Amino acid sequence: MGDSQDTSFFIPCLAIVGPGLIGGSVAAALKAAGKVGQILGVGRDAAALQQAQQRGLIDQVASIEQAAAQAQVILLATPVGAMPELFAQLHKQLGPEVVITDVGSTKQTIVQQAKELLGTHFAQFVPGHPIAGAEKSGPQAARADLYQGRNVVLTPTKLTHDWAQQQIINLWEACGARVLLMDPQEHDQVLASVSHVPHFLSSVFMWQVASAENADLRLSVAGSGFRDFTRIAEGSAEVWRDIFMSNKQAVLQELQHIRAAFAQAEEALQSSDAQSLYEFLERAALARRLWATRSGFDE
Amino acid sequence: MGDSQDTSFFIPCLAIVGPGLIGGSVAAALKAAGKVGQILGVGRDAAALQQAQQRGLIDQVASIEQAAAQAQVILLATPVGAMPELFAQLHKQLGPEVVITDVGSTKQTIVQQAKELLGTHFAQFVPGHPIAGAEKSGPQAARADLYQGRNVVLTPTKLTHDWAQQQIINLWEACGARVLLMDPQEHDQVLASVSHVPHFLSSVFMWQVASAENADLRLSVAGSGFRDFTRIAEGSAEVWRDIFMSNKQAVLQELQHIRAAFAQAEEALQSSDAQSLYEFLERAALARRLWATRSGFDE
Repeated sequence: MGDSQDTSFFIPCLAIVGPGLIGGSVAAALKAAGKVGQILGVGRDAAALQQAQQRGLIDQVASIEQAAAQAQVILLATPVGAMPELFAQLHKQLGPEVVITDVGSTKQTIVQQAKELLGTHFAQFVPGHPIAGAEKSGPQAARADLYQGRNVVLTPTKLTHDWAQQQIINLWEACGARVLLMDPQEHDQVLASVSHVPHFLSSVFMWQVASAENADLRLSVAGSGFRDFTRIAEGSAEVWRDIFMSNKQAVLQELQHIRAAFAQAEEALQSSDAQSLYEFLERAALARRLWATRSGFDE
Repeated sequence: MGDSQDTSFFIPCLAIVGPGLIGGSVAAALKAAGKVGQILGVGRDAAALQQAQQRGLIDQVASIEQAAAQAQVILLATPVGAMPELFAQLHKQLGPEVVITDVGSTKQTIVQQAKELLGTHFAQFVPGHPIAGAEKSGPQAARADLYQGRNVVLTPTKLTHDWAQQQIINLWEACGARVLLMDPQEHDQVLASVSHVPHFLSSVFMWQVASAENADLRLSVAGSGFRDFTRIAEGSAEVWRDIFMSNKQAVLQELQHIRAAFAQAEEALQSSDAQSLYEFLERAALARRLWATRSGFDE
């Protein structure tokens, strides 16, 4: 945690709607840092709530009404598709000092929905997106260090209260994360590129291999490259369907660029143009190595 | 090592042409297992040979002529494109009891080249392909446990001597690997699918992101999914150019199937068909989870 940390930051009561990997890891991190009092868990999945309570991630199961009445911060950690209903429910019963934030992987759609459904409470909503591993899911996978050294993007609008925004910056910094501020549209474009398109390609590939006649033989000789390339395809189909639907235009636009690059590389191979093929592979390899060095992602 | 291990197996003198990650790891494993006497290192890259010698992977630098005269087994661990010249050189000076094997990632082209260039010595050649990580390269990355629990595919032909094949099976089992036998054509198709196509897609993607106007911004929010998906794109451009060129037809055929799957998933998104999108993602996720469980690849 940096020197700029606000030592007075403390949330007496935090409500987490959907305390799975993402929400549960926030709970674990804030508890470990001593930055939270009580944590309420809200959700549809009774078994997951029970697991979260057994692991000590939440102190008590609550309804959305109880959360709105008791919590100072409400963290929405559900699949993106579940958010509109939550906004509509919260709208009716939210006090003026409660902060709502979310962890959805897309931001334009969510901001638009919040604007329509939260009404006068929209300024209390701080849209967020922690960029941290999601190939495992559920409260069992939650851990206090998930956000350590990771980026969290917040996409506040002109209407967002400064004090609300600061509260959520403090929350993520207490989890060990680095906070970046972006415009929702910019967020959605860059995330379509570096997160949603890889998931699309990895899933397309995995689907194609699994659908082949001799799938078992193919899979029997798959190695560590295959393992790494397909790991993200394990992600929750529900979560990713919602992400794709909610960021449809940006994803489709990036896929067009991918298709063009695909055709260019394929053409080099088709025409046995070894030099072009080499230059394409070398540029990709250099860019990857540079990113690995700069990003500090441990290999 | 299994019960079937031949305890009398020992190679008095092994020559490794190209003692980098792959060849150097064979050296380290056989030395650790006490299954080899002297190891000769042959190669064009003087610095790499020196590194291999400093790390104790090879005992002595040798010419290809010296290797042919002294070694009982010659392991070709160069990029696939360098093999024809090596076959031509070995043809002139090989004794009748020397076994040649290779580690090339494609097999039909190499078998064809060996048939043409090794002449009467073709029966002494046992084509092989260890399926083990290659995103790092060079003798510095070599390690004795690289092949532990990994698959090695051998693709002997009807002409291959049984005793030569058995020698190479023993070699890989001594490295801790599991040996599978396949037809060269079958090998190339399944490897095009589970190894070459992922490399192609990962490189196309990395190339496209690095070529975008706002590449730096995109890369600044790339997370662990991006890291895993692009790891293979770091591989040596020279090695992979050779692999693609040498397995061109099988790769192009698989890419056609990928393109069809890509179009189908894209169409589901384009038409906002949430149900089809979900089914596609769910099938990919289930197939990936099943593979991870069955393959024993540690996550």
